[in-house]
Amino acid sequence: MKPIAASFLPPVALDAKSSTPMYQQLSDWFRRAIIDGQLRPGQRVPSTRSLAHELKISRIPVLSAYEQLYAEGYLETFTGAGTCVASSIPGGASKPSGAKAWSAPPKVAGHSAPRRISQRAALMHGPPQTWLSNLGAFRVGLPALDHFPLATWSKLVNRHARHAPIEVMAYGDPMGYLPLREAIAEYLSTVRAVRCEASQIVMTTGSQQGLQICAHVLLDAKDLVWMEEPGYPGAHQAFKTAGAQLIPVPVDHEGLDVAEGIRRGRGARAAYISPSHQFPLGTTMSATRRLQLLSWAAANDAWIIEDDYDSEYRFSGRPIASLQGLDTEDRVIYLGTFSKVMFPAMRLGYMVVPKDMVAAFYAGRDAADTFSSTLYQVVMTDFIREGHFARHIRKMRGLYMERRTTLLEAIQKYVPHELEVIGAEAGMQLVALLPPDVSDVAVSKKAAQKGVSVRPLSLCYLNPPERGGLILGYGGAQLQDIRDGIRKLKSCW
Amino acid sequence: MKPIAASFLPPVALDAKSSTPMYQQLSDWFRRAIIDGQLRPGQRVPSTRSLAHELKISRIPVLSAYEQLYAEGYLETFTGAGTCVASSIPGGASKPSGAKAWSAPPKVAGHSAPRRISQRAALMHGPPQTWLSNLGAFRVGLPALDHFPLATWSKLVNRHARHAPIEVMAYGDPMGYLPLREAIAEYLSTVRAVRCEASQIVMTTGSQQGLQICAHVLLDAKDLVWMEEPGYPGAHQAFKTAGAQLIPVPVDHEGLDVAEGIRRGRGARAAYISPSHQFPLGTTMSATRRLQLLSWAAANDAWIIEDDYDSEYRFSGRPIASLQGLDTEDRVIYLGTFSKVMFPAMRLGYMVVPKDMVAAFYAGRDAADTFSSTLYQVVMTDFIREGHFARHIRKMRGLYMERRTTLLEAIQKYVPHELEVIGAEAGMQLVALLPPDVSDVAVSKKAAQKGVSVRPLSLCYLNPPERGGLILGYGGAQLQDIRDGIRKLKSCW
Repeated sequence: MKPIAASFLPPVALDAKSSTPMYQQLSDWFRRAIIDGQLRPGQRVPSTRSLAHELKISRIPVLSAYEQLYAEGYLETFTGAGTCVASSIPGGASKPSGAKAWSAPPKVAGHSAPRRISQRAALMHGPPQTWLSNLGAFRVGLPALDHFPLATWSKLVNRHARHAPIEVMAYGDPMGYLPLREAIAEYLSTVRAVRCEASQIVMTTGSQQGLQICAHVLLDAKDLVWMEEPGYPGAHQAFKTAGAQLIPVPVDHEGLDVAEGIRRGRGARAAYISPSHQFPLGTTMSATRRLQLLSWAAANDAWIIEDDYDSEYRFSGRPIASLQGLDTEDRVIYLGTFSKVMFPAMRLGYMVVPKDMVAAFYAGRDAADTFSSTLYQVVMTDFIREGHFARHIRKMRGLYMERRTTLLEAIQKYVPHELEVIGAEAGMQLVALLPPDVSDVAVSKKAAQKGVSVRPLSLCYLNPPERGGLILGYGGAQLQDIRDGIRKLKSCW
Repeated sequence: MKPIAASFLPPVALDAKSSTPMYQQLSDWFRRAIIDGQLRPGQRVPSTRSLAHELKISRIPVLSAYEQLYAEGYLETFTGAGTCVASSIPGGASKPSGAKAWSAPPKVAGHSAPRRISQRAALMHGPPQTWLSNLGAFRVGLPALDHFPLATWSKLVNRHARHAPIEVMAYGDPMGYLPLREAIAEYLSTVRAVRCEASQIVMTTGSQQGLQICAHVLLDAKDLVWMEEPGYPGAHQAFKTAGAQLIPVPVDHEGLDVAEGIRRGRGARAAYISPSHQFPLGTTMSATRRLQLLSWAAANDAWIIEDDYDSEYRFSGRPIASLQGLDTEDRVIYLGTFSKVMFPAMRLGYMVVPKDMVAAFYAGRDAADTFSSTLYQVVMTDFIREGHFARHIRKMRGLYMERRTTLLEAIQKYVPHELEVIGAEAGMQLVALLPPDVSDVAVSKKAAQKGVSVRPLSLCYLNPPERGGLILGYGGAQLQDIRDGIRKLKSCW
């Protein structure tokens, strides 16, 4: 192919004062001019010498720019014909040809219609989460970070960060750091009556990732899943992502109503539950219901996903034993997290999976994001082994009891008739039902403006409930903030 | 309901020397006996006083155990009738009733048939990854961790870990830590010719999570996706998880063959490419192909997922400009990672998404695992802002050039006729084709036994290739290990 004759080069604007090096300004300019069609395929460009002369700059940046443009395939050389725009470049590929186009800045954004996203993604859009704007009263799920043993923790972090062996910096095991999994297996056997070995433990970046992996490994599109109604919105999100169909199953004072679940969807593939401390209502699933659920699962080849997100904090009696520990048929995937007992930004959680499911969950964990950051896994192992973890939980249990009492007193004092409290026996939050006909979403928005974070109960439902409520987290709030928060709330409806 | 008469209690075995507290041994025993049917619904149990007497222990653990069993719903009281097993417990729910059952340890595992997992999960099972057993020569994707500026890094880690404000420990923004996103936007504009603002950057836990989120946000089940053939297995995995159908599109010396892609699946929803440095072949996508791909995407309402996993390391000329920077229609999702330029266990990567897609990706990021660990995000910001990042990349580029040269020389010296090298202009790995009829999977297994990690090229294909090869990573290998590794490899086929 013969190159077409060189024509005038459109004006090149270089900025000597720019922080972008000269060769790069030049190659950017060429690239843009070629793409926009000012320089046409096969068109000859000036030699480096004459371009440098014309632009009154040194030849070195011009040489660098041309070399780069060769490497990227924008320019090519023909023996005896000098340098040309590559002849294979599609003519006016990305822009309609037109003399004006080249000098205008490239257009970005401004699409007339919303563009194609997946059906799942379209389902996941929610209203703006105004309750995330504030840390303190009554941010749900936030622990008492001001009482976290940061000195001890950072000493351990520093110990391992400074002398990190290559194993701690390289790619890690998708299942997680083995010594940590051993420590967790011991902890769960002793404190949560979970029956497991370290080989069944899969480290995650938290409950949400655990839910997402469960969804991928266990569910096909259109599979039915029982969801507690009301329940955890993060679980709704995760199972929707897998294309599952969610069946709301009501929760009463004994937890999930298994008989009703069977009526609504006997053949469901899985049930998601938080039996130790139901989110958000706070009820404990009764032994009867637990056994009913296990026998339903065994009879119907279904899975039970047990989310045990904060059962460490029970104020009367001991923590409730896990459902996983009752299961003799290996039907339960047990999810735990350190976000609540340690701190959320740590991003460490775990799953306990049946032995015959380890390979499938390994693949699911690997596909999700390969493995969890190693440093915190190593540090957490020491934190447990050296006794700090048990001590911290004990200390927090006392603190949260005090904060809960203060919250109950404040409600009793300022809004005794407006708020009806349920689920205050455990954990770091409680639910307060609003008077009928008060919109919890509206209250939540108003409260956010006053710097108070309350999460609307109605958003935990798949079907809109008759009566709204507020989820009030007290774990991360100081006593005075709790009192002030309730006073401020009073004027929000 | 009248309680049935108390019968003999099955023998209770308590172990005074066990580390499990007495009350817990007792409540475990009761729970198990009730579930296994030795204690029947409605059956009376001894009073705490008489049980303590019978077992010759203090009454306190018995009281604690009974209290716990009440709370969990295993026991109930009737006025005047004492304590009974809850009458609502399903009789012999989890086990066939039988006198023998109660003393046998609970059965776990031992399922006759493999159990139901999702279709996707079944697809994700691969052969054992023998090439992951070794760190050093020739582990793919492993950087030179022995040259990482650990002292500088750990000083920054320590600085932020010790004085972590609540914002650094609490729940973070799903999009990521804003100052880091600003630093990345600057870096990408300058070095990668990416056109973006910080608001378009979504922090991830690495490329794999970025791929997974793209799959969820952009793809529906059965959607067609162009994949480079050969290509990155992690991308195969991520898109399969979303239920997409993968179309292999051949890669030649100009990168992905766009015309062939159009022949095989014009209406595909997305194309996955690594244009700066194709994985695994190492080719650079030509300008012509880039523009063809962009115009195909614009004409077919398709997405381009650009994986720019290691383009910082180019040995001749400057890094190749990103494809994202050429895109005037906002069709490109750009993926980057710090795993290769920093260290893998850091688990930090990022996506650049079109402005009108930010909301959808926010929801996808949130559903995946909420947000990325904050400490490393804060530390990374300082590492970039204080100039360590640019310095580190420069240093590594020189080091990898040296390691590459050593590898090429070793191949030339020891196996000049057996291995045919391709793709050695950039990055941290190259591909060496094996003689025809030599199985790369078999070579990889043998090599693993000798402590050498080589990844079989054939596993990067969707359709089995005619000729196998080895992917040899040299980033994380010392010069002597490189030479030894090639010598050991020689005897593997």
